[in-house]
Amino acid sequence: MCELLGMSANVPTDIRFSFAGLKQRGGKTGPHKDGWGITFYEDKGCRTFKDPKPSFDSKIADLIESYPIKSHFVVAHVRQANRGHVCLQNTHPFTLPLWGRNWTFAHNGQLTGYEQLDCGLWQPIGETDSERAFCWLINQMQHQFPQGTSDNIELFNFIHDACNKLTALGVFNMLLSDGNMLIAYSSKKLHWITRKAPFSTAQLLDEDVAVNFSEETTPSDIVTIIATEPLTSEPNWIKFNPNEMLVFTDGQIIAQYN
Amino acid sequence: MCELLGMSANVPTDIRFSFAGLKQRGGKTGPHKDGWGITFYEDKGCRTFKDPKPSFDSKIADLIESYPIKSHFVVAHVRQANRGHVCLQNTHPFTLPLWGRNWTFAHNGQLTGYEQLDCGLWQPIGETDSERAFCWLINQMQHQFPQGTSDNIELFNFIHDACNKLTALGVFNMLLSDGNMLIAYSSKKLHWITRKAPFSTAQLLDEDVAVNFSEETTPSDIVTIIATEPLTSEPNWIKFNPNEMLVFTDGQIIAQYN
Repeated sequence: MCELLGMSANVPTDIRFSFAGLKQRGGKTGPHKDGWGITFYEDKGCRTFKDPKPSFDSKIADLIESYPIKSHFVVAHVRQANRGHVCLQNTHPFTLPLWGRNWTFAHNGQLTGYEQLDCGLWQPIGETDSERAFCWLINQMQHQFPQGTSDNIELFNFIHDACNKLTALGVFNMLLSDGNMLIAYSSKKLHWITRKAPFSTAQLLDEDVAVNFSEETTPSDIVTIIATEPLTSEPNWIKFNPNEMLVFTDGQIIAQYN
Repeated sequence: MCELLGMSANVPTDIRFSFAGLKQRGGKTGPHKDGWGITFYEDKGCRTFKDPKPSFDSKIADLIESYPIKSHFVVAHVRQANRGHVCLQNTHPFTLPLWGRNWTFAHNGQLTGYEQLDCGLWQPIGETDSERAFCWLINQMQHQFPQGTSDNIELFNFIHDACNKLTALGVFNMLLSDGNMLIAYSSKKLHWITRKAPFSTAQLLDEDVAVNFSEETTPSDIVTIIATEPLTSEPNWIKFNPNEMLVFTDGQIIAQYN
């Protein structure tokens, strides 16, 4: 399986603290040693750092841990391969263009029968069930809304239905962003936490690192972190319900589907 | 304007020496201070490192200069903005998926009337003439060959004609790769050099760095470097003819169009 990490924040925010925890799970405190990647959105642009090496032992991951890149939305992943061998084209996150936006996707879980998913123009480049599911989803979205849609509720309903269809093929926990919102869907296992004033101190579970967020933030900051398993010892991590989809903007929930 | 750097090699090759020269032109020895990016192909996968900061002063560029990533194909770019402001979504190279391949593009030059180019499904995300020209090119390729084509000559002819059409809009020097080949087109200014046995020493023009390639290679290595302006003092850089297109695989020319 794999682990996911996502962030939505109302100010450009540095994810190094959370990434430091995820990075350890990529081959040291967790078995997810088959590559990792992280995508940062800055306005409509995004950039992805990825490596088929284990994150705990990756020079590129060391840079991400040491060099602050501030972002409103982040999607990250550490991989434990089940479908597809260990190589760059099978490393998440994946990004596809649609409606003049970059859509970025990462998946935790395992699907069966995914070879039948019709991807249309969006042919996968690697061999994973994850990338094929993403290509299928983008193809579905493009066919349903050829010019895009300004009706977010209609779009969210459509994506939730599509995620439920993928869940029928197995385990499907997903992060999806276009730089305007972060969509998180869980068929089985995903957690989230929102940090806002009054801020307190958080201690990573995977490394002896703590941060006093009151020293790192302003009182108006709102930051939500989504992760497969809680990354800190804070008690207020919330588990997603089965098949629940939450949509975040500016660190806050703007839509919720069960 | 901007500067381009490309590589095709018959063995996975480290481009740090050439990149060290380009990096200096990104704000220090050259005026191309408005962002930079580099894409490495590894099999069908690729990864892009990009930064809207000047390359000579970028922590991410420092990593690329210090950490060897070996690749068969590289496309890199340093930007001097003319169309579109300085930001991530306007930073080259750009990558789009077509026919189950990642196509990566970087452009040097300036186009007029580019706003009219029909991009179909491939709507640009940023504001540059470059990205729009790339989206138009991919849209043209998709319409001409909906399922792709195994006839490379037909494909190369089509791309050469499309590049000539873009040249009618201004200056269009381009690098394009799908991980199988590197296509280089020059309307005005582009140079290339092939290094093979017997190897000699090369001295960068932009930094006091020299490499004795005979110590870094095996006798069967063949590496072609393409750059807007020669990066070294070697005498055997060759200038492209106007509207010439060269296609490289394994460091060697496989097709040539004038």
